[in-house]
Amino acid sequence: MNTESLSPALKKTNKGHELDSLFKPRSIAIIGASSKDLSIGNVIIKNLVHYNFTGKIYPINPKEPEIRGIKAYPTIFDVPDDIDLAHVIIPSKFVPQIIEDCGKKGIKSVIINSAGFSEMGEEGMALQEAFLAKAKEYGVRIFGPNCQGIINADPEFNAYCDFTFTFPKPGAVSIVALSGGVGAFIMQSLFDLDIGMRLYASNGNACDVSISEVVKYYGEDEGTKAIILYTEGFREPKDFIEAANLVAKKKPILAMKSGRTEAGAKAAASHTGSLAGVDISTELIFEKTGILSFSNEEDLCQAAMAFSTQPIPKGNRVGIITNTGGPAVIAADELVSSGLQIPALSDKALQLLRAGLLPEASVGNPIDVVATGSGAHFRIALDVLMDEETIDSIFVNFVTAPFTDTDEVARQIVEVSKRQRKPIICNFMTNLSMERFRVTAQLLKDGGVPCYSFPTTAAKAMGALYKFHKIQTRNIGEAKKFSVIDKVKAEKIIAAYSSSSDEGRFLPSPFVYDLLTAYGIPVADWRLAANTNDAVKAAEEIGFPVVIKAEASDLVHKSDLGGVAINIKTAAEVKIAVEAMKEKFVKGELKFFIQKFMPGGKELIIGVSGKPDLGHLIMFGMGGIYVEVLKDVVFKLAPVTELEATEMLASIKSAKLLDGVRGQKGIHKASVIEIIQRISQLVCDFPQIKEMDLNPLMAFENKTIVVDARIKI
Amino acid sequence: MNTESLSPALKKTNKGHELDSLFKPRSIAIIGASSKDLSIGNVIIKNLVHYNFTGKIYPINPKEPEIRGIKAYPTIFDVPDDIDLAHVIIPSKFVPQIIEDCGKKGIKSVIINSAGFSEMGEEGMALQEAFLAKAKEYGVRIFGPNCQGIINADPEFNAYCDFTFTFPKPGAVSIVALSGGVGAFIMQSLFDLDIGMRLYASNGNACDVSISEVVKYYGEDEGTKAIILYTEGFREPKDFIEAANLVAKKKPILAMKSGRTEAGAKAAASHTGSLAGVDISTELIFEKTGILSFSNEEDLCQAAMAFSTQPIPKGNRVGIITNTGGPAVIAADELVSSGLQIPALSDKALQLLRAGLLPEASVGNPIDVVATGSGAHFRIALDVLMDEETIDSIFVNFVTAPFTDTDEVARQIVEVSKRQRKPIICNFMTNLSMERFRVTAQLLKDGGVPCYSFPTTAAKAMGALYKFHKIQTRNIGEAKKFSVIDKVKAEKIIAAYSSSSDEGRFLPSPFVYDLLTAYGIPVADWRLAANTNDAVKAAEEIGFPVVIKAEASDLVHKSDLGGVAINIKTAAEVKIAVEAMKEKFVKGELKFFIQKFMPGGKELIIGVSGKPDLGHLIMFGMGGIYVEVLKDVVFKLAPVTELEATEMLASIKSAKLLDGVRGQKGIHKASVIEIIQRISQLVCDFPQIKEMDLNPLMAFENKTIVVDARIKI
Repeated sequence: MNTESLSPALKKTNKGHELDSLFKPRSIAIIGASSKDLSIGNVIIKNLVHYNFTGKIYPINPKEPEIRGIKAYPTIFDVPDDIDLAHVIIPSKFVPQIIEDCGKKGIKSVIINSAGFSEMGEEGMALQEAFLAKAKEYGVRIFGPNCQGIINADPEFNAYCDFTFTFPKPGAVSIVALSGGVGAFIMQSLFDLDIGMRLYASNGNACDVSISEVVKYYGEDEGTKAIILYTEGFREPKDFIEAANLVAKKKPILAMKSGRTEAGAKAAASHTGSLAGVDISTELIFEKTGILSFSNEEDLCQAAMAFSTQPIPKGNRVGIITNTGGPAVIAADELVSSGLQIPALSDKALQLLRAGLLPEASVGNPIDVVATGSGAHFRIALDVLMDEETIDSIFVNFVTAPFTDTDEVARQIVEVSKRQRKPIICNFMTNLSMERFRVTAQLLKDGGVPCYSFPTTAAKAMGALYKFHKIQTRNIGEAKKFSVIDKVKAEKIIAAYSSSSDEGRFLPSPFVYDLLTAYGIPVADWRLAANTNDAVKAAEEIGFPVVIKAEASDLVHKSDLGGVAINIKTAAEVKIAVEAMKEKFVKGELKFFIQKFMPGGKELIIGVSGKPDLGHLIMFGMGGIYVEVLKDVVFKLAPVTELEATEMLASIKSAKLLDGVRGQKGIHKASVIEIIQRISQLVCDFPQIKEMDLNPLMAFENKTIVVDARIKI
Repeated sequence: MNTESLSPALKKTNKGHELDSLFKPRSIAIIGASSKDLSIGNVIIKNLVHYNFTGKIYPINPKEPEIRGIKAYPTIFDVPDDIDLAHVIIPSKFVPQIIEDCGKKGIKSVIINSAGFSEMGEEGMALQEAFLAKAKEYGVRIFGPNCQGIINADPEFNAYCDFTFTFPKPGAVSIVALSGGVGAFIMQSLFDLDIGMRLYASNGNACDVSISEVVKYYGEDEGTKAIILYTEGFREPKDFIEAANLVAKKKPILAMKSGRTEAGAKAAASHTGSLAGVDISTELIFEKTGILSFSNEEDLCQAAMAFSTQPIPKGNRVGIITNTGGPAVIAADELVSSGLQIPALSDKALQLLRAGLLPEASVGNPIDVVATGSGAHFRIALDVLMDEETIDSIFVNFVTAPFTDTDEVARQIVEVSKRQRKPIICNFMTNLSMERFRVTAQLLKDGGVPCYSFPTTAAKAMGALYKFHKIQTRNIGEAKKFSVIDKVKAEKIIAAYSSSSDEGRFLPSPFVYDLLTAYGIPVADWRLAANTNDAVKAAEEIGFPVVIKAEASDLVHKSDLGGVAINIKTAAEVKIAVEAMKEKFVKGELKFFIQKFMPGGKELIIGVSGKPDLGHLIMFGMGGIYVEVLKDVVFKLAPVTELEATEMLASIKSAKLLDGVRGQKGIHKASVIEIIQRISQLVCDFPQIKEMDLNPLMAFENKTIVVDARIKI
């Protein structure tokens, strides 16, 4: 950015974050302000006023002297003060000029609510490019166009720069959503659940300020404790990965991606590609960067309630306090399903409970203080669990019996919860149409205790907290860089066969194996033979049995065409096989790829699928029916670390088969884990690689060898 | 029931259903009525009054002349009128006498709220048996003891015979719950969701009136449109199956069983048994009888909203109408995941939509009428989908834009919904803190349109309706009775080996195979040999190769002990094997079981596990690693029909492997399906059979043969 061209106003506030002018505006101009009720140019002013915006509002309208009782100005240049942020709500064709004006005025951020840009074809795209050029020239950041806007619920700002109609109370959860519709209903859900919100952003066409940038901004915003993200995919996945890597482990990002079911339909050309739908990329990005992924938006919002007030548990051990039986059973089912444990309590804990609770109370885990249990009894149970070293979190199941001082119970829960030592989740089952229980509910909510009205829902929220603990403590490490590799050789091979076409082309077999060997990946011994005699000689050098593959350009599905002969045991058999191939493949230059035949191992498969702008997905599975019929494979995003490669082996459904079962020997996992990492290094070094199929690798008790492979670049 | 002993009053009303006195009382005595606030004997009177009970209330209290302003009587005999129903809230020791008094007074049903019976050990059990004897003598039906009670929300009765504090509006959903705590919160949830309720029952110890009986009663109750059932298991599963068979297919039963995760811990002794946890029985009962099973109580309550007002769809094809994009994408994901389809619309439909909707509307499926779409636009889309033959149900995604007459949209949805031709589900996303949208919401609710606030939640409810359609149209048929069986022979074998011990004992191999043969189940040819020469002779008769198994009592895990020799190809090998076994097993009488060795087929497993009071679970799976490592098995409850057996083959995860894959031949499914049914017939004829393992069966292209089997009786 050439700061010389900036107005003094912009230079002045450059110390803060560049997006502060967007999210923390002190003065807002509404360009296209309207006196017409329900028009966006009117609603935005109404919303700013209604939400008690703490800064100045400058309606811009060439004709009206005032709008909604606020003095209006014919142009932004007539505004006597500096302006941080402008809303633009004028026909698209006027937008480039207005952006230039904004630049000249020193406005740092502009929300373009107007539509009629890239979403409307070529003409709109040209307009978008035109205003973007102006924005860049003047250093104006653009939010939108064709978007809702932003909200900052921090009482220091109360900036409701949006035309929706739900006014959140201030809190610690920030939202960024691609779809305004979904963003609005998530905001609405938080509102309904009485969860406070901090920042909101829905950026429509997202021509400048991106979701990644917003996520990074939220990451740096101290008041944001948890982030909710809704998307239908990423346009610049690498930017997002970078942003998420910075943010996701210090603050929980609760994310949902929709369009899950369409992904399956997008079958790619290759074997690996057809198993890796578009959708899988986003999920893999979430996994890699440590984002909590949800497939159900209600679960997401409910979890947000827990994240907004509770600390992250340090482990998976839950203590349950209940005053009724059945719902605790239901909760226990879900807690255990989420990977949590409900351990027995120590003798000391049991003694304290027996001494303090009612005689009819059930002392154990769950602790049933029974329906007649008072606030004092709840408090005893809470203190015991807070002090119990083997307990990481507390699940309270609280029904409001009419004969109980439920407010006192609530006060005790709140008091213990405020210590923030272990998370407390409350399944609060009551009748909120009754005033006295509404008061109890309010005590809990005001005290920051997340309250749910179904045991399973509450338990799921607890499960989400625990899942984030696992994410936080899972250190995937750095991808290993194997040093004894021949990168120069690999570069030569890749350079010789690189193709600029989108389709790419397959490397001839010798280069495939050379490339793998260059990266230290063990392959079955091979020779290339030009004729029958050479083939016999090659087979004898390698040692029988061998496999013979016809080698010619464009001969991909060899085995279907009779171009592969396996388990060749003698020189005579070599001759027969080679002659037969010669008869079958008369066209072009035919060679013979002779390779060691290695039966008796367990067949594995490793696949690679390159994704534009993202990198490579690496797939692992067992070969044969496991991949072809049972589709039992697992994917990771390259670069794959040792931990991730280890997880891959452990997370296929048939993982147990990799160990010795039914008298069979187990495979040599370490070598497979190393091959996955070496493949990862290879494809990261050469983004040109479009596809790779090592299928199969033969896994033996003491080694793993690639016996067939294809690479497309 | 000896009607001679009944009082005239009881005889008089015997025309109706026996439980009418419980669920439709015209007069209620509260035995143990109390003037003490918050005591159960006071709360029940308060609730009856508050809920406007339409019958008479008779507080019974020896000292008080009136309670809560209602005239009280010292004893029930002092009440001048007949009494239909009595609450008993007195110490347990007095209950037997009171039940006798109730009998004498002609009271037909008694709700015993008091605790202190079977749940309190022997002494309580004796009291329970004592009052039950009196109840039977006088023909009094007992509800409870140690229970909440019943509610009838029909305005003709308004009978709130319960001490809880949520007062449901009348509706069409009836609840029966084992746990009062869960029953109460389900009732609360329906209340919160504004779903009307009809009958409620929570029967505590359930010593007389059972859940099965209540389900049957709800089935016969015209006003009940859907039933919610919560249980932690069934004490008398056969009774429940009978009741559910009568009810479940005409009225949806939405059920949840908790304690799912504990089941895994209850490992039984045998192989089959260890895979069939206790829990599986309840799920199998639900499946067999056509009950919708939920693992999440919130999903259950949300689904109840749809079932309470909407017709069942006739197929899986959904039309979606939306006025915003994102949430429709989320809904589509969930709909498709639930097995629903979102088909393209006919040209005629598209033409009508194009002609009627706004130019910016998106015409297709989903139909996006856009945010500016009016009630008229929604109506056009609704009518098109109602008339479209390829659409079975309608999903409406409705956000409330401020510039839209949302009430008019609601009115149009209601009007079309009232036709009850196809189910309509509405994802209604709005801000209910705004008066104008509350009005819109009320229009929808009053019009019987099920409204949800999350797209996934709404889509799940639609999925539940469709699942019930599948249940209704799935006719499992009657179990086949194979006639060419030798039941007499089977009876003899069973009789000879029947054991009264709980553990049971294994049948000797010859009897195992005789039993299977008697029921037409093909087994590998076999002979029993007493010595080496006989063994050689037997092997020659059968034809090599053979298997030789050492046969002696209490020799169960033969192969682990070296008691099995496979693939014996010559007489000499027979001799060697037999001599080796003789050396190993010196104790007892040793014989040699010689059987045809049949390699090369696919290994299958069929298992049977007898459950007391329920019958048998039949398991099917592929043998070897599939059952042992991958646990890929499926269970059904005997008797198994042809359709169910067919479903078993289709529903294992590795089902595709039963067909020919990777050049292998497929198995002969018809013979497996027949064997499952014959096994089912065998175990139904002989409930004494405790366990059975056909492991493996060898499945070939043209036949399936049992090659190893164990039976415990």
